[in-house]
Formats: sequence, C-alpha cells, structure tokens
Amino acid sequence: MKIIRNLTTFITLSLSLAVLFSCNKESVKNFDTTVSSPDGKNRIEFSLNSDGEPTYQVFRGDVAVIESSKLGFEFGDSIDMSSNFELVAVEENSIDEIWTPVWGEYAEFTNKAEELILTLTQKGAIAKEMKLVFRAYDDGIAFRFEFPEQANLKEFEILDEVTEFRLVGDPTAWWQKAQFDSYELRYQETKLSEMPSANTPATFRTQDSLYLSIHEAALTDFAGMTLLNKDSSNVLVSQLVPISPDSPVKVKHAAPMKTPWRTVQIAETAGALIESQMIVNLNEPNKIEDTSWIHPAKYMGIWWEMHLNKGTWENKNAADLEHLSLQEQKDAFKAGKGIDKKHAANTENVKKYIDFASKHEMKGLLVEGWNYGWERGWKNFNFTTPYPDFDMQELTKYAQDHDMFLIGHHETGGDVGVYEDQLEDAFKYYNENGVPAVKTGYVRGEGPVDIHGKAYHHHGQRMVQHYRRVLEVAAKNKVMVVGHEIIKPTGVRRTYPNMLSRECVRGQEYNAWDAQGGNKPWHTTVIPFTRMLGGPIDFTPGIFNLTFDEYRPDNRVHTTLAKQLALYVVIYSPVQMAADLPEHYEGNPAFQFIENVPVNWDDTKVLDAEIGNYVVTARKNRNDWYLGAITDEEKRSLEISLDFLDEGATYEAVIYSDSEKTDLENNPTAYEIRNQKVSKSDILNIDMKESGGQAIHFKKLK
Amino acid sequence: MKIIRNLTTFITLSLSLAVLFSCNKESVKNFDTTVSSPDGKNRIEFSLNSDGEPTYQVFRGDVAVIESSKLGFEFGDSIDMSSNFELVAVEENSIDEIWTPVWGEYAEFTNKAEELILTLTQKGAIAKEMKLVFRAYDDGIAFRFEFPEQANLKEFEILDEVTEFRLVGDPTAWWQKAQFDSYELRYQETKLSEMPSANTPATFRTQDSLYLSIHEAALTDFAGMTLLNKDSSNVLVSQLVPISPDSPVKVKHAAPMKTPWRTVQIAETAGALIESQMIVNLNEPNKIEDTSWIHPAKYMGIWWEMHLNKGTWENKNAADLEHLSLQEQKDAFKAGKGIDKKHAANTENVKKYIDFASKHEMKGLLVEGWNYGWERGWKNFNFTTPYPDFDMQELTKYAQDHDMFLIGHHETGGDVGVYEDQLEDAFKYYNENGVPAVKTGYVRGEGPVDIHGKAYHHHGQRMVQHYRRVLEVAAKNKVMVVGHEIIKPTGVRRTYPNMLSRECVRGQEYNAWDAQGGNKPWHTTVIPFTRMLGGPIDFTPGIFNLTFDEYRPDNRVHTTLAKQLALYVVIYSPVQMAADLPEHYEGNPAFQFIENVPVNWDDTKVLDAEIGNYVVTARKNRNDWYLGAITDEEKRSLEISLDFLDEGATYEAVIYSDSEKTDLENNPTAYEIRNQKVSKSDILNIDMKESGGQAIHFKKLK
Repeated sequence: MKIIRNLTTFITLSLSLAVLFSCNKESVKNFDTTVSSPDGKNRIEFSLNSDGEPTYQVFRGDVAVIESSKLGFEFGDSIDMSSNFELVAVEENSIDEIWTPVWGEYAEFTNKAEELILTLTQKGAIAKEMKLVFRAYDDGIAFRFEFPEQANLKEFEILDEVTEFRLVGDPTAWWQKAQFDSYELRYQETKLSEMPSANTPATFRTQDSLYLSIHEAALTDFAGMTLLNKDSSNVLVSQLVPISPDSPVKVKHAAPMKTPWRTVQIAETAGALIESQMIVNLNEPNKIEDTSWIHPAKYMGIWWEMHLNKGTWENKNAADLEHLSLQEQKDAFKAGKGIDKKHAANTENVKKYIDFASKHEMKGLLVEGWNYGWERGWKNFNFTTPYPDFDMQELTKYAQDHDMFLIGHHETGGDVGVYEDQLEDAFKYYNENGVPAVKTGYVRGEGPVDIHGKAYHHHGQRMVQHYRRVLEVAAKNKVMVVGHEIIKPTGVRRTYPNMLSRECVRGQEYNAWDAQGGNKPWHTTVIPFTRMLGGPIDFTPGIFNLTFDEYRPDNRVHTTLAKQLALYVVIYSPVQMAADLPEHYEGNPAFQFIENVPVNWDDTKVLDAEIGNYVVTARKNRNDWYLGAITDEEKRSLEISLDFLDEGATYEAVIYSDSEKTDLENNPTAYEIRNQKVSKSDILNIDMKESGGQAIHFKKLK
Repeated sequence: MKIIRNLTTFITLSLSLAVLFSCNKESVKNFDTTVSSPDGKNRIEFSLNSDGEPTYQVFRGDVAVIESSKLGFEFGDSIDMSSNFELVAVEENSIDEIWTPVWGEYAEFTNKAEELILTLTQKGAIAKEMKLVFRAYDDGIAFRFEFPEQANLKEFEILDEVTEFRLVGDPTAWWQKAQFDSYELRYQETKLSEMPSANTPATFRTQDSLYLSIHEAALTDFAGMTLLNKDSSNVLVSQLVPISPDSPVKVKHAAPMKTPWRTVQIAETAGALIESQMIVNLNEPNKIEDTSWIHPAKYMGIWWEMHLNKGTWENKNAADLEHLSLQEQKDAFKAGKGIDKKHAANTENVKKYIDFASKHEMKGLLVEGWNYGWERGWKNFNFTTPYPDFDMQELTKYAQDHDMFLIGHHETGGDVGVYEDQLEDAFKYYNENGVPAVKTGYVRGEGPVDIHGKAYHHHGQRMVQHYRRVLEVAAKNKVMVVGHEIIKPTGVRRTYPNMLSRECVRGQEYNAWDAQGGNKPWHTTVIPFTRMLGGPIDFTPGIFNLTFDEYRPDNRVHTTLAKQLALYVVIYSPVQMAADLPEHYEGNPAFQFIENVPVNWDDTKVLDAEIGNYVVTARKNRNDWYLGAITDEEKRSLEISLDFLDEGATYEAVIYSDSEKTDLENNPTAYEIRNQKVSKSDILNIDMKESGGQAIHFKKLK
C-alpha cells in the first residue's frame, strides 16, 4: 500500500510541536497514522488489522523497506499484547535538537526526527493500554512500546516479543548468529534466507540497493533483542534473550515502562550507515553533571604479552600472601616471597611500559592481572587487593609523574555475584588510588553466575541491569568504563558518557591464539557496518609484529602493517589501544601515526565503502583530517576525492601505505610513508595490497 | 726519478722494529732513504739536492703523486733551515698498533705504517740539526720536522715554511681560499692552476684518477698551515698563519720541538679518503685517564630560533641586574624585572625543549644566550652569571630528572683575554652545576683580541695554544667541548677525547640568514671530502621546516627533507643536533630516523661517491647499519649493493627517501618512508631528487 502524502499538510504538522488528536473514534482510518522523516524520504505507516493487531510498514520514497509487520508482546498469565487493540489517540511531535557530546565522532549531534505516538487500548474488562512511539529520521526509523501506569497492569513478565521485520525480497545479509552469551563470533555474508538468526546489529543490502541495519537503542532494563528467521523467509522476528537458560521469562517489570527502541537504519550507501547518528540520538541526555573527569585517551597495556604467552595474568606464587595486610605483603615480598617471573603485571614491568608510553603521547596504561583471583583458576576475584609484586601506590604516582594514568581491570570470570558484593568497595578503591578508568571483563563461556551459582545469560535482563549498575557505581566514583564480554552498545554512552567503549566483537586477541586461525582479512571490513553501528569498539589495533613467531608460530595477524594503522580511523573508539609490545614499536616510523591519531573527533565522513570489501573513512580533529582505508583479502586501487578538505587550504599529507614489497603472506610488515602537499581539488590514488590498508594524516598548513 | 725497490730487502727491513744505520758518511746514496706503506703501494723517496736542500717525492705504485718538493723553514735571525744539510742517520720503524677510541667512526683504529727518521745536520759552526720523520701509510703519507735539543738552537722564531707539495699535472681541486680567521667559506671546484690558495684540508683528483688531500695532523702548539699557489702552477707551498696581523712571526718556540705532521691522504676512490684513519692515528694517545664522563650524544638546543630571529640571544632588560647576588636577581625577577619576552634562553622555554627532547632520545640540550654579555653588544661576557630569567639550578635538575643534560655555551665574542681570565671559574661553574658539555664560540670577523685589545689570528699559534688550554681546563673539570670558530681539526680528539666536535665550516645557520642565499646544494657533497677529513663536523643538520617563510621569507635550506636525514650518516660527529624547533618535528614520522640514528659507530664504509656530486655512506652501530646518501643539484639514481650486511642475516630496512612529489623548489618537504626486508645479496636502487637524499636504517632481525 502506498500513501500519497499531502506535503503541505505534513509541513504544517511538523512545525507544530505537538498536535494532539483527542478523540474516541474507533477506526484508524480517521487518524493520520503515517509519519515521514524531516527530509521526507523515510516514511512509516501504522495500521491495525482486522484482529486489532498493530502493524507497520516502512518506505523510502516509493520503495518499500519493511512490508507490513506485526508489533507486540506475549506477556505471562496469558496476557496478549499483540492484538485486540484499537487506536484511541495520535500525537505528532517534531524532534529538533542539537547536543554536544562529552566525546564522540562529531563535535555536535543533530537529533532531528518526526515522531508519532499512538495510544492503543484493548477491549474488555482486563483490557490493557499500550503506546507505540514511531520516529522517522532521515537516517532510519525507530519505534518503541510504552506500558503506561494503568489499573489493569502492575507487575508483569514478558515471555516473547512478536515484533517483526518483514524485509522485501531476499537481501544480502551480514550477520553473526544469535547467541545469548557472546558477540565474539565470526560474521557471515549470505542471502537473508540463509541466515537462521542474528545478533544485532544485523545489516542488509536490498534488491533496491538500499542499506539497512536492524538494531535497538537505549537498552537499559530489558532483555537484549536477537532476530530469528523462523521460516528461512524474509521475515525476522524479535527473539528476546531469556534472563537465564532455565527460564522462559525474558523481562520482569512493572508498569509504567518503556521498551528499548527497535531501530532500522536506512541508507543509500554503506558508508552512510556509519555516519548515522540515530542510535545514540535515541538515548536520554547525559545524566552526569560534572564530566570534567571523562576524557578520551590512547593507551597501552600489560595485555598483549599475556595473549602471546610471553607473560601470565596470574602470579602463581602469591596465593599464600593474600590475606596478609598490605604492609605484611610488602615485607614478605621483600623477603623473596610471591615472586613469579612470568607474572606480567609487576611493578618493574609496568614502569617500563609507562616509560615508553609516556614518551609517545599515550595517556592510559591498562594493567591486567594486578589482583588476586587469577591464581585460583580465574575466579572469585579480589578487587581491592593487588598482588604483592604490584605496588599500586607507587605505580599510580609513577603514572601521574609521567602525565599518565592507570586503567584498572575488573575481571569477574563471570562471577557477577562476587563482583556485585565488592562493587562499591572496588570502585572506591580505584577512586582513592587515583585510577580513573577500568576495563571490566566477564569471561565465562556458559554465562555469568550469581553467588549461589545460578546462571544468567550475558545478554538477558538481569545482566543488562548489572552492567548498568556497574556504570552507575563507576560514575559515582568518577571512573570511566571499558567493557569486555558485556552487553552490546545501544547508544547508552549519551546518557552515561563514562561508558567509553566496549569489546563485544572478535577483537585482536583472537589473532594471538584462536585455533581457527584468527580473524579473516574481511573481518574489519564488516564490523564497521554491523557491530560498530551500535557504538565504539575496543578492538585494540596496532599490532606491528604481525607474525610473532617467537611466541606463537602457529598464529598471526592476517593484515599488513598499514592496515593496522588504518584501523585507528576506520574503527571508532574514544579509547584506542596501541596493543603491541613496546619493543615492537621502538624505532618504527609507522608508530608516529599511532602517536598522532586522535581519539576524539569533530567530524566523520565515510568516503567510499562496500561492506565486506573495503572502507575508506575520514575523520576530523581540530584543523587536521585523518583517513583510514582498509581492504579485505583482495588488493584494491581506489580514487578518493579530497573534497572534504577545507576550501583554499593546503595540507601536508603524511601517507602510511602498503609498499611495492608488501605481501600479506611473506612480508606483511613492509610499508611506506609518503609526505606530500594536497588540497581540496586533489584526487588521491589509494593502493592497497591484499588485506592491506592506508592511513593518512592531513596536517593543515598555516 | 723512479727507484726499483728490492722487495725482499724492504720486507726484511720492515720486520725489524728499528734498524739504525749509524755512520758518518757524507752522501745520501749510502742510505736507503725510501719508505713504502705496509701494502707496498705508497712510497716516499727522500733526497738531498746539491745545495743540501731536503726534498721528497711520493709515488703510488709507479705513479708519481708528489714530484720532487722542498722541505724546511726559514727561522728568524737569518737562520735557514731548508738547505746546507747532510744526512747523518736513517732509522726505520714499523708502526703496528690497534687502539680503541672512547668514541669514533670505528670500534677500533688500526695505526699501521712504515716510518723513516732522517737526521740532518748542517755544516759549519752554527750548524743546526733537524730530523725529518716520514710515515708511509696504506692511506697516505705524512712527515714532520723535529728540532732536537742542541747547543746551537734554543729559542727561535719561525718566519716561513718552505715545504712544497708539487702535484703532477693540473689536478681538479676542491678548496676554499686560505683565510687566517675563518673556515666558514664556500668551497670551489677548479683546476689546481686556478686555485690561488687554500685552507686545509684541500682535496684533489689527479689525471691518474687518484684522490689526494693535503692537511696536517697534531696541530697543538704551532701555526696553522695554509697552502699558497704562488705561481698558479702545480706547486703548493706551506703558508703558515701569522700569530697576529701585524707580525711576520708564525711560530715562537724553543728546542726541542716537533712540528705538526704534514699529510697527504692518497686514495683510489673518493670514498676511501673518508674511510682513512691516518689523521687521527698521527696524534698522541689519549691523555685522559678516566673517560667515563665522555660520551657521544644527540642534542637539541635553544639555537635555531635565534638564527630564525624568532627569539634573541640577549635579554635586553637584564643589564641592571648583573651585579646583584643570585638571590637578589631572583627576587628582582619575581618582582617583574629583567623580563624580555623575546629572550629565548628562559627557564620556561628551556623546559619545553627538555619536555620534547627527552621524549625523543635526545640527551643534550644546548642553551645559547644564558649569560650576561649579549646585551652589551655580544662582548665582555660573564661566564658565571646567568640571566635572571634563566634558573641554572632548576634547569640542570630538570634536565637530570628527564635523563638529559644541559650543554653550556661560552660565547667569547673573540674576547679571548676576557675568557682566559675567567677560564678556570667558568669551567668550575659548569662542573659544580652539573653541566658536562659546552659549546665554545669565537664570533669576531677580524680575529680575537686579548684584554689589551691586541688582535691575533684565529688560526695562529697564540690561538692554537688558547684552544688547547681550554680543552685542558675543560678536561680537568670533566666538561666535553664542541668548538665553533676555532682551529680546524687535526685529530687531536685521539689525545683529548673530550674534544667532541667542532664547526669550522659553513654550517646550517648560513641557510637562515646568509645574504648570498645560504649553502648551495653541492656544499654537503664537498665537505665530507675536505673539512671532514680533519675530523667531526658540528653541522647541525635536521631542518624539517625548510623554507621558514614565517620567519625569514628570503632565506631557505636548499635541500629536500630526506637529504637532511641523510646528513646524520654522511657527516660524522659524536654530537649531532636535531637543529629545528620542536614544533617542526612534532608528529612528523621522518623524525623517527633522527631519534634512531646513533652518534657512535663500530664501522664506516663509503659505498659510492664523487666529490661535489654525491656521497653514499654506511655506518654500523651494534647489529644495525645506517645509510646516508645525498646528491648535489642533480637528481640521481644509484644502484647500491648491500654486500656490507652480515652474511646470512635478514634486515628490516626503513628507507627514508625523496618521493615522486618531492621538488626542491616547490615541495622540498615531501618524502616517503618504506619498510622492507633485505639481505646481503640485494641491490638497492637509490633514487634522489635534485639536492635530495636518502637515509636508511637496516635493523638486523633476530
């Protein structure tokens, strides 16, 4: 069905802040239940079918994007929240807001949309009210459900969501299968009909060459949504993550409540998906009043050497000392106890990293393996007691003296109950010791457990609540958070900007030890269009010693060195690690790019991209632009116009590229750096070898 | 005249350590007065002519290098020391010594020569005795005069030296004209017949394609030697620098004395001149017992910004405070006195340099303009009182805290009397304040003056004595010396290794302000074969902002950026400056080469060179090799074999080169850096643009 909108009417409505159609009419036909984006291109059409089932369709211009799809839930106690509705009210709002992030891909975010709020009520004595809120953005559409406070709905359980996304035809899909405990999975490219299920964001290219990505925004107290392709057709159904493996319940709540937003980003180019601001715009504004302690940072860490098995997380000789006082531990250590030469997070080694890192513009130093717990099989961690060979006071001072800070580490081993018991103390400990950031981790394949051993799903409501609580306690103690193995990003960083970044992806560490050979060359040409649409990725790029034969001869990183540099621009994160060992950077001119590349941006443009093939992204910081280009297993030559540069300005371009000698198999570390003057009117030829890349720093000349 | 040597006899003689022919015979014919180098190629033939004039000839194989040339002096009081001699004794020695320098171009120096000592006496009652010592090295020949203790010679004055260097044919010459007060002159390339005079080293290519360079060694208490081409012929005569402009006397001394060595380096390639160790070998061994405080260093400095006129040496508002106590000066400064915003050597600015330099492996920070004297027209300097805005104690501590040291500065303005009066105090002051190195300077065009205003020549005996005294007082106070506008190097560094480096050349600073347009592109392809044959050059390379239009739009550096890098290898010095401002290095990947390049070497090889055209030099430090290639105004492509690398080893070559876009006139800062694996069997194509260069770091892989 196509509706020919009266544009004049639409504009008039848009200009009014809120036009309320108060009415008691029983038929949807009397309401205008369509809403279009500010640019008029994206359009949502709502309707109720004859069973009173809410449905929606989405169009871009004349092209159907989502065909008529159901909306609703099945609650416990046989409460049906997906049919028997009638429309009683329609409200239309114009959202038009410019907000300044504490950090981000842009200096400003523009939150501009048309909103339609539909009030639906059921018939009968135990009838429920449900609101549906639609937003049409220029870069996609979103909708959420609201369950207002009402006589017939107090506490409730959600057993299933029936919301559908009925795509048109059989689009190409980039996806990883739905998994309730991990996003660290390989991506695949298939026809939608060959995709059984998916974690979100899942991304599609339609027969009309539109790019779509389905995800959610503002997931704060709900189950994570996955997508199920029940009939191997073009209909994806929301499949919520159960709270725990043994429970049919997905969400427990009381009215009033608002669900997360279900989102469909829509773009005419793959790159425009990355440029989209919709997910983060759909979140509530910043709740942290004083944000002076929140700042992006580049960092190094006691980390890669454990992945390479050069060092260990655990101090295997420290166990007996844990319950001594700090002074007693120090004395015992001086007397020669608790020394484990392979334990990486020792005072001397940390200082070596600080010495190097502070010389190269790094601000943070991650320290994994600093506390008790590793030595007992990575469990039951003690978050306030350092190993005896790790002098927290001395090191935080040493870091401060070098204009750096430590990034702490809370590995939970999935013992969330143990962590929650210590949570306030753990963050207070960091606050008092001057550790302003922490990496949290939840390594445990089968899902986290509480103190009674009860297992939950990583992505279920119980854990979503947990991650949020960690964020709030961290904020109270002025600690920034980078999460590993936590819930996917849904733009919550707008509300809690101390939520800097997270992993939730097959990161660099898989290249160190993965039995399946690590990440394939195409991996990083897919994740910017899937995982990264949710938010920043702590991917930990920058490995220079790509084959590390002295440590793990059977593994390697499947990229060239230049591609590692390009990842700092292609993959967005306000914290970017220089992940390799200092000795692998020492004296290498290519490290200058890592030293220079900012972690905060005023502007972002994707210049050219095809998902799974290549990406060319440019980002601006103050006067300078940076460009990152990467390719999959194919070598490529691209012509890139520099028309994003300022009019009339000359830039000194420092170009880090694959060289003639670069060869993925035999010489991946070969590269070249060129320095040349360029301006807006220039076209740059970007040549990349197999799994190669190119990184460019455009320095504006005065 | 050619002598056919009986080789068997020669070898027998060589093997005996000293064979003395004691005799009273009157004719030279009874002595073997020839001596050949250990490899048999270079041969000196001595003879007395019918007037009893000592003469010598030099051959390389069958080829005459120096035709029969006179030897001797004219003393005051009409004493002739150039004729009427007879040969009374001949002694032959083999010199065969390997010595380890405190620092140098080689891990070891091999001092291997055959020596012939001729005792000559005059006839008659006031007859004098003179010894002539010849040494034949594989890389050249040398001779000196000795005046033994004797009844007929006590104190004496030398008015002239008659020693000749009669070259064969009309060689091509690279030279700067003889000047008694400066070596900061342009070099020329002409036929020898068009060279009126020359400072030494002066270098020649003969019709037989031999490369010769005439210089002197061990100039410690004598007049500097220049060369005069009296008749525009092929005969050069030693022209000694007078002690002062108004005196005919060149040297005042008493017997016994030894003159400096007169040297002729001989080589079959231009590069072999640079590899020659003869000059330094001809000096006495190290006299400094504890050399632990002597070490090569890279440095930055408060220096270039004054040459650019961004800052000044003088604090024009400090004059009134000079005679206050240090504490009173500090108080006055706090009260706002003595502040001159353009004065560069102020505490805050010095700290900024240290902050940057300490991050980039620099060890020294030169501070020019720290003391009183500049504000009164650069004269009558006070060497123990810093300007009130320069906190010596705070800065030496700040430097030490950053693992660096200050390089002090003694500008004398030519007031050598004033300097000598303060000399002991000046060095004691640096010693006590922890300043372990000093740059000394003698800027004054018309020559230095004593406290009575009496003028001397920079290169005369009086000043040679002065420079030596400074070196000795410095050594006593454990201070290393870098000299500007002092006497040329003659290998004295072997004896006093605290004599690190010196300028004595048109250095980088001419590019900042020279009214004749600075140094021409060919300049640095000549000085390695002329000035540098004497010893290390403090050339201060590494300018990245090559045109500095914001400071001096009419001046610029006439090289590409890559050539600036190559100079760190081509030009040898145990102290090398990163001469540009920190802001011009910040974030530039090419700076990595300057960070990496060592200032001390285990080996040195010139791979290819033509004087005035191009030079390709490789130097080794521990496992790694570094290569520097530079060209004159012509662009060049050279094929360089890497057969100097270790057998069986793989190296990661980081190649800093001109790029396609590099253009001397319009884009001199364009460059590229390539990284590739190489080994001994590889041939490298080295492409250089006009006045371009290439610098390579070969990192040995384990």
